[in-house]
Amino acid sequence: MNTKPYIEKHKDRFINELIELLKIPSISADPAYKNDVIKTSEHIKKSLEDAGCDLVEICETPGYPIVYGEKIINPDLPTVLVYGHYDVQPPDPINLWDSPPFEPVIKKTELHPEGAIFARGACDDKGQMYMHVKALEYLTANNELPCNVKFMIEGEEEVGSESLGWFLENNREKLANDVILISDTGMISKEVPSITTGLRGLSYVEVEVTGPNRDLHSGLYGGAVANPINILCDMIAQLHDENNHITIPGFYDKVEELSKEERTEMAKAPFSQEDYNKALDIAQEHGEKGYTTNERNSIRPTLDVNGIWGGYTGEGAKTVIASKAYAKISMRLVPDQDWKEITDLFQKHFESIAPKSVKVKVSPHHGGTAYVTPIDSIGYQAASKAYEDTFGKTPIPQRSGGSIPIVALFENELNSKSILMGFGLDSDAIHSPNEHFGIWNYLKGIETIPHFYKHFATMSK
Amino acid sequence: MNTKPYIEKHKDRFINELIELLKIPSISADPAYKNDVIKTSEHIKKSLEDAGCDLVEICETPGYPIVYGEKIINPDLPTVLVYGHYDVQPPDPINLWDSPPFEPVIKKTELHPEGAIFARGACDDKGQMYMHVKALEYLTANNELPCNVKFMIEGEEEVGSESLGWFLENNREKLANDVILISDTGMISKEVPSITTGLRGLSYVEVEVTGPNRDLHSGLYGGAVANPINILCDMIAQLHDENNHITIPGFYDKVEELSKEERTEMAKAPFSQEDYNKALDIAQEHGEKGYTTNERNSIRPTLDVNGIWGGYTGEGAKTVIASKAYAKISMRLVPDQDWKEITDLFQKHFESIAPKSVKVKVSPHHGGTAYVTPIDSIGYQAASKAYEDTFGKTPIPQRSGGSIPIVALFENELNSKSILMGFGLDSDAIHSPNEHFGIWNYLKGIETIPHFYKHFATMSK
Repeated sequence: MNTKPYIEKHKDRFINELIELLKIPSISADPAYKNDVIKTSEHIKKSLEDAGCDLVEICETPGYPIVYGEKIINPDLPTVLVYGHYDVQPPDPINLWDSPPFEPVIKKTELHPEGAIFARGACDDKGQMYMHVKALEYLTANNELPCNVKFMIEGEEEVGSESLGWFLENNREKLANDVILISDTGMISKEVPSITTGLRGLSYVEVEVTGPNRDLHSGLYGGAVANPINILCDMIAQLHDENNHITIPGFYDKVEELSKEERTEMAKAPFSQEDYNKALDIAQEHGEKGYTTNERNSIRPTLDVNGIWGGYTGEGAKTVIASKAYAKISMRLVPDQDWKEITDLFQKHFESIAPKSVKVKVSPHHGGTAYVTPIDSIGYQAASKAYEDTFGKTPIPQRSGGSIPIVALFENELNSKSILMGFGLDSDAIHSPNEHFGIWNYLKGIETIPHFYKHFATMSK
Repeated sequence: MNTKPYIEKHKDRFINELIELLKIPSISADPAYKNDVIKTSEHIKKSLEDAGCDLVEICETPGYPIVYGEKIINPDLPTVLVYGHYDVQPPDPINLWDSPPFEPVIKKTELHPEGAIFARGACDDKGQMYMHVKALEYLTANNELPCNVKFMIEGEEEVGSESLGWFLENNREKLANDVILISDTGMISKEVPSITTGLRGLSYVEVEVTGPNRDLHSGLYGGAVANPINILCDMIAQLHDENNHITIPGFYDKVEELSKEERTEMAKAPFSQEDYNKALDIAQEHGEKGYTTNERNSIRPTLDVNGIWGGYTGEGAKTVIASKAYAKISMRLVPDQDWKEITDLFQKHFESIAPKSVKVKVSPHHGGTAYVTPIDSIGYQAASKAYEDTFGKTPIPQRSGGSIPIVALFENELNSKSILMGFGLDSDAIHSPNEHFGIWNYLKGIETIPHFYKHFATMSK
């Protein structure tokens, strides 16, 4: 198999097609973009048909539709199910983008001398998902598809994949497969390919602290009533101790502790704390005592405030004591923490530390369970060989700090292992302003994926 | 002197004139309203001319103009200088208003069976300032003005009166007076008139905490870099100890401590903690240990967060670690704290408690010094007699928690004492949604003020 000539011949079209897809602002978190999200699902349907699927359906769900596509060449052959998502994160803070988030531009960067596409969703996950569509085009156009393939592309990943569980439950037969293939993660670098073998779980909550029943003049009331912003800050500060351990009782009870050997193995991955700090322009790293940076963001659970607001936030000064203050707080979880249990523990603890002078409301948003993939499965080995074919190197198995909660769901509902072949880089700024995806990475993904099909079909015999 | 018949005859016009003034959104904090602020100054000029001033000028300053007006009947007679402001607080949060803030409506409330005017600035300070314009109209229309009068109405009070110091310095002769009269405070209740004898000072700062140089994905980086929102919360939490004392070193060094006798005297003012809590719908009051509610909000300095923001604050969830987090923080000060010194102490302390993993910037906004009026002055005694004439009761001298920083400035620049005859109520919701001013209070002010002129002229002989 040599995928390169076809890709070389069609690469301009492959890039332009992705750019068209990136122009649609499919922000699932904001109801104002509902029509764009739906328009994107129709766009995906057309792309799958063009790439060679025999059947493509836009499947209605309680939320945004899921695009299902398939090409069944022989029911006796193994089946690969490709998962991806067509929705994107909100682009805020919009003023920090160098170019509008939904007007894709190609720019060269130090890491991407071949150019990178700058747009919201360029990497997460439109770009990475579209690699699979183009890989299918390669396989069908060249008559090299060695097995059956199914696509399941959803529109609610960035808001917790709420409809996906429902969809899996109701379509087990349709979705039956031998392995699930996902590109929604990254690799260590262009020179060091890696396969993600672990993902963290997530519990995302919103909290509201209410003090007086209306905004008050801070001169007339200041000092005599509980200020909900000060109280919220106090309560958030209490969630970590002086060693940056999380203080929620029971939070660490089920945390999988890695052995010394496993931690030593992890520490071999190439990493420079100095470069890391320099890239983020920070004078010092920060995190749980007793763990390294790579451990803190992969094998350890964390708690971060993702947003906070209350009182007067406009220009100038307003001497007000707000009635309410709010925060969005998420916890990244590790095996074997149960996200629903952790959400309950958070809620109970947060309510328990509130002083009597305020009222507190905790609203769970969504969550998901952590996941670890075995590296001796046929799926992992097929992926590893695919990278060897196109990178000339064996990829490194890597635990990631991110969460794709649906990976655990797939295992439960569909009884399948997921293989996480990510081609993005940490520096791609996903979820941040100026998200981008290297053209080299995009084309390398399209080049590598067909090799996975070849090896998986061969090894499954 | 009997001011009642004239007021009874003209009260509908007095109310309608105020309503017209309230329709102009003179929000000094927001540059978007610049034209409206200037339009309001022209409106005030016209009102002062109509009320009987011989000379009215719109005086340009480095900021918004100051309206100066005068009626000099005899240079040998004493002169009263009336101060007020025509700018208003921003109306945020706008969605909590029951009617639009700049479309005044009259509604009856439990405390205001005669009706109250609901609009931003109804009480603070357009309504209270306009009482003085109408009091002048009464005095000139009825030929009862017993002394000279000057008006100085500014447009930057809600943003720190930055141009006022410059104006005073450059116009000492023009502004020469024997007493300054201000209605920008409240009274205990409609049955218990009071004169404000103390005001708190103010130091208002804005803080910015910067973590990584861009927003980051909380999965990939969570736990390994300092989250500026968590750090900001930690730092804010550290500003109070477990007894709600402020922890800034040196903060209390110059605080005037009241004697047991003075505190016993203060405790005699009618007050029900139960009613207070009920009115604010709070289960428990909150404040510095060892002091009562009325002490906490008048004779004690305080520190409150007036606004906080950072990260994702929109609908739904975004798993982001923000690059920056912000807060607006103000401190109410008491005699003899120096606001510039306190601002410096805050800045040094806040910078010193920042961990190395973040950068911190403190930007002072504005400030002012606390003030105490002696109750044996002619001005205070004349005001006291005026209330006796119209309320049939001697007013109670009261220390207020609010700040009118310019009162200390007047004493320094113009060598005059200020008399604070406020007719508002704590429940008027100034600086809050649904600000209002009772029609009874408005007319009672117009009724009472001319009596002050009478007594002040007589007692000054």
